[in-house]
Parts: sequence; structure tokens; C-alpha cells
Amino acid sequence: MKDKKIGLVGLGRMGGNMARCLSDKGYNVAAVYDLNSEVAASLATEVKATACANLAAVTAASEIVLTIVTNDAAMESIFFGEDNLLKGAEGRVFINCATLTPAIHGRVGAAATDAGASSLEACMASSIPQARNGELFLMVGGDETVFESTKPLLDDLSEALHFVGPAGKASEVKALVNMVMNINTAALAEGLGLGKALGLDLEMLLKILGQTGARSRVLETDGEDMVARDHECYFSAEHAAKDSGIALKLAEAQGIPTPLAQATFDQYTKMTAMGLGELDKSGVAELTFKGRALS
Amino acid sequence: MKDKKIGLVGLGRMGGNMARCLSDKGYNVAAVYDLNSEVAASLATEVKATACANLAAVTAASEIVLTIVTNDAAMESIFFGEDNLLKGAEGRVFINCATLTPAIHGRVGAAATDAGASSLEACMASSIPQARNGELFLMVGGDETVFESTKPLLDDLSEALHFVGPAGKASEVKALVNMVMNINTAALAEGLGLGKALGLDLEMLLKILGQTGARSRVLETDGEDMVARDHECYFSAEHAAKDSGIALKLAEAQGIPTPLAQATFDQYTKMTAMGLGELDKSGVAELTFKGRALS
Repeated sequence: MKDKKIGLVGLGRMGGNMARCLSDKGYNVAAVYDLNSEVAASLATEVKATACANLAAVTAASEIVLTIVTNDAAMESIFFGEDNLLKGAEGRVFINCATLTPAIHGRVGAAATDAGASSLEACMASSIPQARNGELFLMVGGDETVFESTKPLLDDLSEALHFVGPAGKASEVKALVNMVMNINTAALAEGLGLGKALGLDLEMLLKILGQTGARSRVLETDGEDMVARDHECYFSAEHAAKDSGIALKLAEAQGIPTPLAQATFDQYTKMTAMGLGELDKSGVAELTFKGRALS
Repeated sequence: MKDKKIGLVGLGRMGGNMARCLSDKGYNVAAVYDLNSEVAASLATEVKATACANLAAVTAASEIVLTIVTNDAAMESIFFGEDNLLKGAEGRVFINCATLTPAIHGRVGAAATDAGASSLEACMASSIPQARNGELFLMVGGDETVFESTKPLLDDLSEALHFVGPAGKASEVKALVNMVMNINTAALAEGLGLGKALGLDLEMLLKILGQTGARSRVLETDGEDMVARDHECYFSAEHAAKDSGIALKLAEAQGIPTPLAQATFDQYTKMTAMGLGELDKSGVAELTFKGRALS
């Protein structure tokens, strides 16, 4: 696997750190591309890759291409734009890492097949340090034989790896996971904001929450940050709004009532509208503590 | 402590099992009382106590009285009704175990003082097996010296014991804890209901939720029950509606916006209105799975 030429498209904090991780582990990172050509040039120097001038050049220089873009429009552009990854793509494997709508993963999969290539969706439920250290949580959808053929690479990027079904299914699971996580986060913000208003000792309250049925993963990761207003971004409020929005559309299509997901989407959408979309998801506490964004 | 005569008022599944627990541990359970006199007579035989014909008799026969009633109206009745616990209550200690509004704990505390007695609120965040085994999670409010004087007894009833402040504060913390727990529960029901509708493997989905930011205590306690429709009651939907309702009133008084707590209260209130209030809180999944209560 380590003899394969790897390309990466989308060199934000996730993509850039995945490139560094693969390079550290001895992979041949051959080609990198980002809309921001300075970012691409700098990373290319760091991992000894070629900074490509266009997407077709990435495909030409790589056997496996990892794409890490932020939304459906960017995904549309790199696969269906004038300059795109599918030109000369025969025999290539695309591994698409991002939470997008299930629908676009299906379309990209079909177009890759038409071009003689293969593709997987590899949805990540992790953040920047995990990308850097090869400890991602990956949920993969697509053809199972393609999954098996790229498993050593996926294993090196991840600490947990789940094959969940055909293309589109991984984004469904990811949207669900983030929908539930976002609700739990917004719930915690309500509890702590109310506790503060009632004059409770928040350190004690955090401890009690952690010993009872109210315990949650986000209590561990976001509880103290909410109290301290430390909203350095690991997973942005804007991103939370996007993922909850994807889940809401799926729920609507299935006729499943999801009032809590809706209320959570509304909170994160409100944050974004207030210019707080770049804060970490813990920033939802800015809406529930007196004298913060509330006032 | 074990030489003190203990009385118990309210012999439901919690109160009855607390009496059994104390009796097993060698306490002198002297007097018991319940509106249902058959329940009281049967328990009295079991723990070798006197089944009292009225509340004043419990006070006469006890030094410490534990009350375990279900709501503010019942609490009002046992302390301020025609037959009540405060008659001849000088020197008695009342330990009031129930999630009531913070306000009534304050009123009972003041009335106990007027009667020459003392009182504590001891809110439980646990269920029936914990009551039986002396493994309650107890949050205590009231006078700290009264707390210290009854600590050996409270320790024998609990596995975690927190003194949280003056009378009323423990119910505030309890309402907050249950508010957050109920939201997390209703969130999980939305995620699993949507996952089922999407045709996902729910066993895999439960596993993935447990490995990601969506992990929660209620995932461990209620996840499989929601899938299996096993809603045997540990903490009823009606109770969930009550506790979320108390928290909502506190939030409203403080001017804290709590849209998720509201959406959760609405779900549990809806369940109760549909005649599903006796189900466990996990039964909220009946509202989010196709072909269940939804249909």
C-alpha cells in the first residue's frame, strides 16, 4: 500500500493533517491541491509532494485520491466542474472524506464508475488532533471490495473503522451521530446556563451531571469549556448547523418527527446568523447563559 | 444512629424498598404509613414495624421520618393537611425524598422549624434497585448541621451523597439533572427512529453512537430498550414530563431560553396524553419509530 501514489484535495485543517499523518507513516504523498495555492505550496514542501495547478493533474499524478472538502457545492465542483478529478481517472480510487448529503456520494460513485474509477465515502467523526495522529473515527460506504483493497490505508488513518453499507449510508450514519451529539451539546448548554442563573456551584453541577443519567461524552469534552467560555474551534457551530440540517432533511423525507433536532438546528443556525458560527459547538452556551450573547 | 426510631411515609416502589434496605441494615424501622393501608400493613409485617393509622401517629412513633411522596400536592397534604406530620413534631427530623418544586421544600422547612423540628430535602437521582440496595444518588439541601447529624443514615441509603446548599437547592439540581437526561433520552429516540427508517443496522448504529461524541449514559441504559420496545418502567414518562416541567418553570423565572427542554417536555407530555405515561422514559421512542404510536 505504501508504494501507491497518494493525492489529497482540500488541505484545510483536516486534509492538511491527514497528509502529514500519511507522510509520517511512510506513504508516498505524491500530489496535493487546494483552492488556496499558498496553502498547497507550503504543505507540498512539508510532505515532499507536488502542488498541482489543477485537479486533473492530481488524478494524473495519483493512484488513490483523498478528497476532504467542506460541503456539497465544493464536492460538485471537484468532480463535475470544468477542471475535475474524473478526467483520465481510469483505475483510480477516490476516497471522499467529508460529511455531505448522502445523495452526492451516490452521484459521485456513479460518475466514478462511468469513468472507470472507484470511489468510497469515508465519513469522519473526529477532529484535528485525530487527523494528525491517524486516530480518526471512520465510517465507510461504497463497494465492499474497494473498501477491502484500501483497508491498510484507512487503518493507518483511523483508530476505529466501520464499513456501513453502500455509498450514501456512511453519511447517513454520520449525520445521525452528529445530530444526536449536537442535541446533547445544546442540552448541556441549557442545563449549565440555568444552573448558573440559579446560583449553583457549576463545578459541583458538572460533577453531579457526570455521576447521573445526564452523563454524556459532550459533558466531558465541552462542559468546562462552556463554563469558561473557551470556544476554541474543534467542530464549529456552523458545521453543527450543517450536519443537523442534513439529518433533518433525511427525517423529513422519512416522515420521522424530530422536534429536538429541529430545536438544535435552530440554535446553531441562530449562532451562525449572529456571527458566532466560527465558534466551537460548545459556543451554544453563549445563547443560554445570562449576560452573554443573550443580553 | 441505628438506635433511632425511623418512620417512613409513602411506601411506593421507592419508599417500600428504602424501608426494606434500612431494615436489612439493622435500623429500627418503627412506623410506616401509606394512603393504601394494605400496602402499609404488608410492609409493616415484612420489616416488623407498626402500620400507622394516621400521619400524627408516625410522628409520635419516630425520631426521624423519611417522606417519599410523588408530587407537591401529596407533600402539601402530609405536612399541611388536617392530619399531618407536624403535630407533636418537636425534636423530629424530616428527610423529604422526592423531586418536588424547590418552593415547597422551602415552605416545609420553615413550617418544620416553627414546629420545633428540622427538615432536609434529599432528592434522589436513582431508581428502584438502588433504593433496595442502599445505592441511591442523593442530593441534599437544608441546614448543614442537620445534614451532618443524619449523615450515617443517608450514607447507608446511598452510594453518592452531595450536600448542595440551603433547602430548595437540591430540587433545583435534581430538576436540572433530569432535564438534561430527558433531553438526551428524547435525542437518542430521534436518532434511532431515523436510523431504523433509513434501514440502518441498529446494532451497528448503537455501537457507533457509543464510540463517538453522541455517547451518553442513556445510550447505555435505554438504547437497546428503545430498539426492542422494552419499556418496563424504571423512570416513567409522566415523571419525566413532571421534572422537565419543573426545570422549565425555573428557566422561565430566570429568563433562560431552553428550547430543547421545551421540546422534550412536549414529547413526554404528549406521551402522557396518549396514555403512555406509565411507560419508562425510553418509551419516547414510541413517538419516533415508524409504525409504533406514530403510524
